[in-house]
Amino acid sequence: EIVAAVEAHFGPKPLAGKHVLVTSGPTHEPIDPVRYIANRSSGAQGTALARALIAAGARVTFVTGPADVAPPSGADVVAVQTAQQMHDAVHAALPADAAVFAAAVADWRVSSASDRKLKKSKDGLPVLEFAENPDILAGVAQMTDTRPALVVGFAAETDDVEAHATAKRARKGCDWIVANDVSPETGIMGGSENAVILITEDGAETWPRMSKQDVATRLAERIGNRLV
Amino acid sequence: EIVAAVEAHFGPKPLAGKHVLVTSGPTHEPIDPVRYIANRSSGAQGTALARALIAAGARVTFVTGPADVAPPSGADVVAVQTAQQMHDAVHAALPADAAVFAAAVADWRVSSASDRKLKKSKDGLPVLEFAENPDILAGVAQMTDTRPALVVGFAAETDDVEAHATAKRARKGCDWIVANDVSPETGIMGGSENAVILITEDGAETWPRMSKQDVATRLAERIGNRLV
Repeated sequence: EIVAAVEAHFGPKPLAGKHVLVTSGPTHEPIDPVRYIANRSSGAQGTALARALIAAGARVTFVTGPADVAPPSGADVVAVQTAQQMHDAVHAALPADAAVFAAAVADWRVSSASDRKLKKSKDGLPVLEFAENPDILAGVAQMTDTRPALVVGFAAETDDVEAHATAKRARKGCDWIVANDVSPETGIMGGSENAVILITEDGAETWPRMSKQDVATRLAERIGNRLV
Repeated sequence: EIVAAVEAHFGPKPLAGKHVLVTSGPTHEPIDPVRYIANRSSGAQGTALARALIAAGARVTFVTGPADVAPPSGADVVAVQTAQQMHDAVHAALPADAAVFAAAVADWRVSSASDRKLKKSKDGLPVLEFAENPDILAGVAQMTDTRPALVVGFAAETDDVEAHATAKRARKGCDWIVANDVSPETGIMGGSENAVILITEDGAETWPRMSKQDVATRLAERIGNRLV
């Protein structure tokens, strides 16, 4: 009844019957029980996007690292800490009609991570060894079976945003890249606004600066158009 | 009038007229604009302690890293990110009658931190160089001028808690160490309870496991007794 009333008001839901996977937030990679390496991400853009997709009728699986903002209600929420856990949760959630990778995932983990607290060495400095994390975006974009019809990556850049993002799209094999400039002076990281460049097979579209909610609504519309 | 009513109800405030400095929360040490190294600390114990000190009549300066919990109302709050910023804020807040260092401060920072996002190298792995951060606790504990009458450190340990904390008290030159076992299986880190060992000049006191609020109340009482 309520659903019918909502549909009567807003019109049919373009993403009804579609399953969309969204990753969001940072990952935390442990160094020892008290220290970790994190990526800066409030989770605001991924959460706003998940909300917009749900409003458009999609069933959303929301795989989130430890974010500042609360996850969207109405999503199937899977909470993870590390990139490896996020990778596993993503593959457990497939198949999906579309997958949007908005999380800021650590490229590497600390392979020398200790289950005891590191003590200061004689010179007071640690030696950390790193190992590469699985590339979640490329892994899904390059699936031969059950690849989502639309695979979208995000690129957080600080210089040559369009060039870096265009190269990333080709390298990863995904359909779109949503790129933004996260230089501290833009105020985008942790802020309420975003200024994105959408890289598709047709090239680069520079969107005007707008609220993360408006970016989310516009992206959800584009995803709806693409999946019809 | 309200103050008088409160005092009439609760009795005299043992810490009235005293200035207590409390540090709390983690520090974040940047690697590049999107990555950082953090210490796990919700800020719950430091915040509870500051509240208990305020309730006991103290003027509290609360120097906090990016914590999960909101800072106590009624404190002079100084928000910082890095250990160096915390060091500077602590020294700006002195003199104090007592200083309690409950923050989980990074021992080292990334000296190779970049203002551009690190790109993956050929083997995909970063090389991070570290430098030692100032030792805030030892610095204040060993001041010759304007040392607070009572200097309290915290020790988050995962093994040999009492021995490590006793050694830390001697090494730092502080009066007390509040030690706890932060091994993941204790559930203390991020939880609502704490099990502490208080190391003083008289030796080690093992307190029963209790809420962080009760630990705070008990510590505030002890601080009040000591400063009288």
